[in-house]
Amino acid sequence: MSESVAVGIDLGGTNVKVALVDVRGRIKARWVSPLDPAESPSVTVREIVATIDSLLAEAGLSRLDLAGVGIGAPGPMDLRRGRIVKAANLPAWHDVPIRELMSDALIQPVVFDNDGNAAAYGEHWAGAGRGSDDMVMLTLGTGIGGGVILGGRVLHGHFENAAELGHTIVAVNGAPCTCGQRGCLEAYASARAVAQRASAALAQGESSTLRKVADDNLNVQAVTVAQHARGGDSLARRVWDDACLHLAVACVNVQHAYNPARIVLGGGLSRAGDLLLDGVREHFARQKWSLHDDLPTIELAALGYDAGLIGAAGLGWHRHRRPDE
Amino acid sequence: MSESVAVGIDLGGTNVKVALVDVRGRIKARWVSPLDPAESPSVTVREIVATIDSLLAEAGLSRLDLAGVGIGAPGPMDLRRGRIVKAANLPAWHDVPIRELMSDALIQPVVFDNDGNAAAYGEHWAGAGRGSDDMVMLTLGTGIGGGVILGGRVLHGHFENAAELGHTIVAVNGAPCTCGQRGCLEAYASARAVAQRASAALAQGESSTLRKVADDNLNVQAVTVAQHARGGDSLARRVWDDACLHLAVACVNVQHAYNPARIVLGGGLSRAGDLLLDGVREHFARQKWSLHDDLPTIELAALGYDAGLIGAAGLGWHRHRRPDE
Repeated sequence: MSESVAVGIDLGGTNVKVALVDVRGRIKARWVSPLDPAESPSVTVREIVATIDSLLAEAGLSRLDLAGVGIGAPGPMDLRRGRIVKAANLPAWHDVPIRELMSDALIQPVVFDNDGNAAAYGEHWAGAGRGSDDMVMLTLGTGIGGGVILGGRVLHGHFENAAELGHTIVAVNGAPCTCGQRGCLEAYASARAVAQRASAALAQGESSTLRKVADDNLNVQAVTVAQHARGGDSLARRVWDDACLHLAVACVNVQHAYNPARIVLGGGLSRAGDLLLDGVREHFARQKWSLHDDLPTIELAALGYDAGLIGAAGLGWHRHRRPDE
Repeated sequence: MSESVAVGIDLGGTNVKVALVDVRGRIKARWVSPLDPAESPSVTVREIVATIDSLLAEAGLSRLDLAGVGIGAPGPMDLRRGRIVKAANLPAWHDVPIRELMSDALIQPVVFDNDGNAAAYGEHWAGAGRGSDDMVMLTLGTGIGGGVILGGRVLHGHFENAAELGHTIVAVNGAPCTCGQRGCLEAYASARAVAQRASAALAQGESSTLRKVADDNLNVQAVTVAQHARGGDSLARRVWDDACLHLAVACVNVQHAYNPARIVLGGGLSRAGDLLLDGVREHFARQKWSLHDDLPTIELAALGYDAGLIGAAGLGWHRHRRPDE
């Protein structure tokens, strides 16, 4: 007996992932392929469609078993019109009506959202946010992204660019950010910020076990800072702790802005596990208010790099939840 | 010929206001009465119902012309169950099922929300937020409250306490706030903060035209600080400008959190008019990012103290928009 599946498509800057995902958010089959920058989008779409058909056939399914199709991609994009405006590393992807191309090729509706929202939806549906209709995800990578689920739906906002939580300001006139603002969360707690702040402290001559592993320009990676913080190095601990403090303040702000049941921490920095979670929770407990007990739980993401893929499929499954479709 | 109206009820700590509001958000008739702290809630409800009937009769209308009824009240409250949990100054108002009491008495559905949300809804429907389905209001009073309208609906959040924007943190480890946190917006830009910061500067001996009008404890009011800032006094200008800076940072954060089309500044401090609006807009232009042009317009509230009353009526008119009713 065949079961329905949804297709999730994660269209990244360097490769495309396609998965069949069951009704509970489990990946049943997957396929990954590098994206050829020279290839036209319509050729790539044909390749994706052929992949879907062959994944379905291998699973003993057909297009009739498809409960939905969702695509996640990095911005900038035009969500209302279903278009990729521009794609880093892919010059041919200029103002591409990806939703329509996929929908025409598959002869069924396709949902399209940005990768941060798709990842948040994945965690909401099948990961660390399961059971929480009001959930916020912070994706701690090179930069910091966000995704907000309210009432079980993705928040987009008037300009379709809501949940840019990495660029909320936690320190008036604070550290400069790549975005042009000062004092952004991203300038204190992203992987890039953690690495840069550790390097800067090394450059000032502070003694640290990081010095042995830094390169000639005193560069270290955030994951290395986490390792040395765990090992007790005081410079690494201070930099890591400061990132956790700023993330905790961001969690307080998320609490007061959206009042979610849960905040989920994902992205590369979250691979530090308890070192991140305990640090953020401890600072949150000190930073939070005492007026009400409207406190979200803070958890690590559960789906890793599959969050966006699973979430895209989930958006396909649940497309009736979208008021604007 | 009779026209439909909705009833708005603004149940404050010291008085109750009742209005008949037409389909465009205009008050057609109103009534205000002090709340007797000794009176039981059921007696007050009977009085409100009698008032509604008499306002209707005077307007040549009957209960059949009622398109909806909405109540706004200060927290803490249980919105899902429609109950006032506690009311400052009103000891008899303890766990009162106000929505059910009003609904039973009027034999029709009643919508209940907190006063901040009702005010935001009023501005969204009939004030400075008209035409913006995604709109955020900051109410700058003694403290700072907020109300968030997303897709034409009030945001409540899992704990029904969303949009506490006065307690979002804009300065890590910053000024202590009455809520137990540090660095809250409210600690820099509320009427109380403006007054306190001016007084503190006076206490340090700084020369200022405020000194002549301060009381023996060097206390001044925020409205006085605004007047003297307008008059060119450097202490007053600095305190006022700093409040505008922190409000602008809060607007940046609102932008990235919700991506609204418009931010509306209301409450007592907004009576400073252009002095507030120009200050916030100028700082916003300097603080905002340069990555996208997803910039909300910032406006002064238009409905003054009637925002909550009109908004309560609007919530009654549009109760079908509420997914949780």
